[in-house]
Amino acid sequence: MSRSYAIIGAGALGCYYGSRLEVAGCGVHYLMRSDFDYVAEHGLRAESMHGEVVIDRPRVYRDIADMPRCDVVVVAMKSTGNSALPALLLPALKVDGLVLVLQNGLGVERQAAEVVGAERVVGGLCFLCSNRIGPGHIRQTRVDRLKLGEYATRGVSERMRAIGADFERGNVAVSLSENLDLARWQKLVWNVPYNGLCAVLDCDTTLIMGNPATASLAVDLMHEVVGAAKAVGGHVIDQAFVQKMLDDTAGMNAYLPSMQIDRQEGRPMEVEAIHGEPVRAAEAAGYPVPKMRMLYEQLCLVDTLRERRA
Amino acid sequence: MSRSYAIIGAGALGCYYGSRLEVAGCGVHYLMRSDFDYVAEHGLRAESMHGEVVIDRPRVYRDIADMPRCDVVVVAMKSTGNSALPALLLPALKVDGLVLVLQNGLGVERQAAEVVGAERVVGGLCFLCSNRIGPGHIRQTRVDRLKLGEYATRGVSERMRAIGADFERGNVAVSLSENLDLARWQKLVWNVPYNGLCAVLDCDTTLIMGNPATASLAVDLMHEVVGAAKAVGGHVIDQAFVQKMLDDTAGMNAYLPSMQIDRQEGRPMEVEAIHGEPVRAAEAAGYPVPKMRMLYEQLCLVDTLRERRA
Repeated sequence: MSRSYAIIGAGALGCYYGSRLEVAGCGVHYLMRSDFDYVAEHGLRAESMHGEVVIDRPRVYRDIADMPRCDVVVVAMKSTGNSALPALLLPALKVDGLVLVLQNGLGVERQAAEVVGAERVVGGLCFLCSNRIGPGHIRQTRVDRLKLGEYATRGVSERMRAIGADFERGNVAVSLSENLDLARWQKLVWNVPYNGLCAVLDCDTTLIMGNPATASLAVDLMHEVVGAAKAVGGHVIDQAFVQKMLDDTAGMNAYLPSMQIDRQEGRPMEVEAIHGEPVRAAEAAGYPVPKMRMLYEQLCLVDTLRERRA
Repeated sequence: MSRSYAIIGAGALGCYYGSRLEVAGCGVHYLMRSDFDYVAEHGLRAESMHGEVVIDRPRVYRDIADMPRCDVVVVAMKSTGNSALPALLLPALKVDGLVLVLQNGLGVERQAAEVVGAERVVGGLCFLCSNRIGPGHIRQTRVDRLKLGEYATRGVSERMRAIGADFERGNVAVSLSENLDLARWQKLVWNVPYNGLCAVLDCDTTLIMGNPATASLAVDLMHEVVGAAKAVGGHVIDQAFVQKMLDDTAGMNAYLPSMQIDRQEGRPMEVEAIHGEPVRAAEAAGYPVPKMRMLYEQLCLVDTLRERRA
């Protein structure tokens, strides 16, 4: 019997992955707020590199109490809403179910684990461009990769393989990481400088890379992340990885990281998960990260001003 | 016989001090670009704490070649225009005249000294709020203090006293510094954090101080400036001075530092004088200033984006 999935926070990311899991033949249930009425009536439409998927009668819910318990509860909302996790996870989870955390940053699995227990948590890193272009209508472009990893243990588990296989049947490119924490720090090598600098300086990645001063600053920030990954987790991230992040970004067209899109659209920015958590982890390990801290502090104000200006 | 003054770059600051020197009975000549036509016809109007001064027939010049040589050439334009100094200083200077540099930041006297010789340069730090509110019409509010110091030597010279006496007759509160370099570093303790952070984060000082994260960042930046002042110049700036800067700023109403006003009005920002110079000086002395450097690098991009957005 195929696994059932509960998508908690069905925005651009949740709806996209939901649509791929539907293609894979899984039972998908969507917890949805703002677009609920529209989607309940008109269905869900997901355009992507893999073609268009229209789901006429998606199983959408406004209230978690109405949703059936599922094998996999997918945490797909922004981490800024994680204070709601206790109310959302347990009602949606089968007794032997597990939670898949598809959020940005560091420490997000820990927040789920505090609710359901560490052994029931799998993490996922999304390398995805997906945007909501209208009610119940999302469009995925360019990259679409998902990296899965166990939270409480190292190595590749059977349940990771099974979930990965579901996504792969939906055409998502899946990789299985033996070391989720390393994968999270690797992703921070990109996310810390580009999400942070674009949001503070109100610009896209080409402007950061096109100016020698900020391009140099991005390198410095990457090196702080690499040093913190070693100090906090004992992870080795080599210079070739850093160079690849720089080269890839220099070769991209103008790209707006999610945090800058959130800023522009007046939504809460994931400052704590992407910046606050790694800064606190590094400093707790006795490893100073002055530029990461400065960026974090600037983002705290930008996030406040966003609220004022919204 | 009273001293004659050439005001090079007669904007809000130059016109204000010019008007005070006219009150003091000095001969004042203004080099002026944008407002030249208006002022030549309608005169100059300066409102201030000391009342209103109207100069019906100010001695204004569009071209430095038309200006008579003066005893004191006052460098009153923004330091971003200092590449023009060689063409502007020598034609305006009497054989035994001197140059008074009234610019923000560090290294600005050196640029004048490279043109006229270090022994002919006196520096001045302006603690002044003066704005152009219309053509030929400026308004000074709140503070009005001028601190003078010799560039090439320590101590208080006779010519400093004489120039200071001219300004004081015009009601400007003058202090004479025995150590100009120390005074410049002291001013940077305020200018580096507040000019820089307000311009990067597009806000005023109360927002910086009202957010615990950026208030803490301002303190860190001040401490880097204090450390750099010691490493570069051997200057001791004590914690009481830092605390006074913080307390004064916390007690101010919403204040826009000059760099943020320049950003808002699409004018070049004094990034090199206020940030680039002290960062380079500190690093050349082997003293790392990671947060000052990061702020400088961010400002480099903001200044470029200002040009694009203007």
